[in-house]
Amino acid sequence: MKLKETTTIRIRFNETDPLGIVWHGNYITYFEDGREDFGSKHGISYLDVQSHGYVTPIIASSCKHKLPLRYGDIATIETTFENSPAAKMIFHYKIFNPDGAVVCTGKTVQVFVDDSNQLSLNLPPFFESWKKSKGLL
Amino acid sequence: MKLKETTTIRIRFNETDPLGIVWHGNYITYFEDGREDFGSKHGISYLDVQSHGYVTPIIASSCKHKLPLRYGDIATIETTFENSPAAKMIFHYKIFNPDGAVVCTGKTVQVFVDDSNQLSLNLPPFFESWKKSKGLL
Amino acid sequence: MKLKETTTIRIRFNETDPLGIVWHGNYITYFEDGREDFGSKHGISYLDVQSHGYVTPIIASSCKHKLPLRYGDIATIETTFENSPAAKMIFHYKIFNPDGAVVCTGKTVQVFVDDSNQLSLNLPPFFESWKKSKGLL
Amino acid sequence: MKLKETTTIRIRFNETDPLGIVWHGNYITYFEDGREDFGSKHGISYLDVQSHGYVTPIIASSCKHKLPLRYGDIATIETTFENSPAAKMIFHYKIFNPDGAVVCTGKTVQVFVDDSNQLSLNLPPFFESWKKSKGLL
Repeated sequence: MKLKETTTIRIRFNETDPLGIVWHGNYITYFEDGREDFGSKHGISYLDVQSHGYVTPIIASSCKHKLPLRYGDIATIETTFENSPAAKMIFHYKIFNPDGAVVCTGKTVQVFVDDSNQLSLNLPPFFESWKKSKGLL
Repeated sequence: MKLKETTTIRIRFNETDPLGIVWHGNYITYFEDGREDFGSKHGISYLDVQSHGYVTPIIASSCKHKLPLRYGDIATIETTFENSPAAKMIFHYKIFNPDGAVVCTGKTVQVFVDDSNQLSLNLPPFFESWKKSKGLL
Repeated sequence: MKLKETTTIRIRFNETDPLGIVWHGNYITYFEDGREDFGSKHGISYLDVQSHGYVTPIIASSCKHKLPLRYGDIATIETTFENSPAAKMIFHYKIFNPDGAVVCTGKTVQVFVDDSNQLSLNLPPFFESWKKSKGLL
Repeated sequence: MKLKETTTIRIRFNETDPLGIVWHGNYITYFEDGREDFGSKHGISYLDVQSHGYVTPIIASSCKHKLPLRYGDIATIETTFENSPAAKMIFHYKIFNPDGAVVCTGKTVQVFVDDSNQLSLNLPPFFESWKKSKGLL
């Protein structure tokens, strides 16, 4: 079983470049849109994480582009949680254009840092509880 | 006498829009570039202000556009400090294109908020000292 | 009678600054969100305008800030069309926080430029028709 | 022999997030800064490529984060051209903080698309000439 959510966005004029397509760096923002929407729906948003005394900086991100998106396009972000045993939050992304074709795929990796600025080597207790509540542990 | 500084920027690809010109919202970033450069040169940068226990949120900004800027253009920002008696930092901006023509003019107004989150109605002491040191008081 | 639309946005993490509040330049993006939403609902979006052979560059924008917005806030943008006789599109904006308080007010002015890059001194025919259809002429 | 250039940037206030560090998506902009500076110095900038009738969309990008950057930091981007036999432009990036420590590493891959919107499977003639002029062919 995979935890997965889909999020709809509309491409802004200011997100496109002189070629008339979304500037590649903006996909990182769309990944964040997807991740945040996933988090809101599953109780693991940035604000949820912070309420437990942790922040979750991104340590790696990647994106592979297959097709362009244009101004005004309604795109769909599919955000999938990878159930890794590590003390990390790993998300995979697929973005689809209005025709349902895959525009890009991507991945982000986050670690847990506690409020004394220490990297967690083990699952923080709140995250362990969350995984259990979702049937992932 | 007016305190004034000029700052050179190079227009980034990702700052331009499908019309091939700088998206209008990015001029607010250029104003910040000019203001920060002014601040660095005159000891009144954001970090200087913070070291005295204040932050200076923007309460008003405006921009009038006359000509476009394009990707790769080397533009010049002229940032002028307005010597107002109010407990405010007021800057005026002119941006010039590579031919020396005025691309836009603008203005920002900042207030002083202290570390107990109170708006300063009078000049903060550090700002009064700064104005004296610049011959503005 | 005033043409007016409201648009709901959710403040993104990456739109906020080290003070934990929305960076002031991002309000220009929110104004564009409101204007585009208004345009979509009333048949006068950027893509509609372009389909008639015109572009509508912004020649002036301004914003007055009264309260901050924070990450995760659901804000409401109220976009009002000003029925000016000039060959311009003028919009006024009010953004409200989740408590209904006014966060900022703003204004943008756009002109019409045709596909031979000439500024329209008179109302373009499509815009005149649009105004009639909305009871504004 | 590797073609490599270094570029100095100053971190803007609006590039940092509520944690006080650069928002991860902005590193994609810094990579573009490094790539463009490399291009300007070596005659292979985006404008050079376009003058030969090609555009070079990004098909993949990745970034690994090791340390944060903060507002006001002077960072150095090291951009290295990978001499691949493929019809691609591949760049590797290292960004260093003011202490000389590696902040992040990254990579981008670009393809060549000609003015009839066709992907080039072979090296475009101008790119072949450029590689010869640099001793890479």
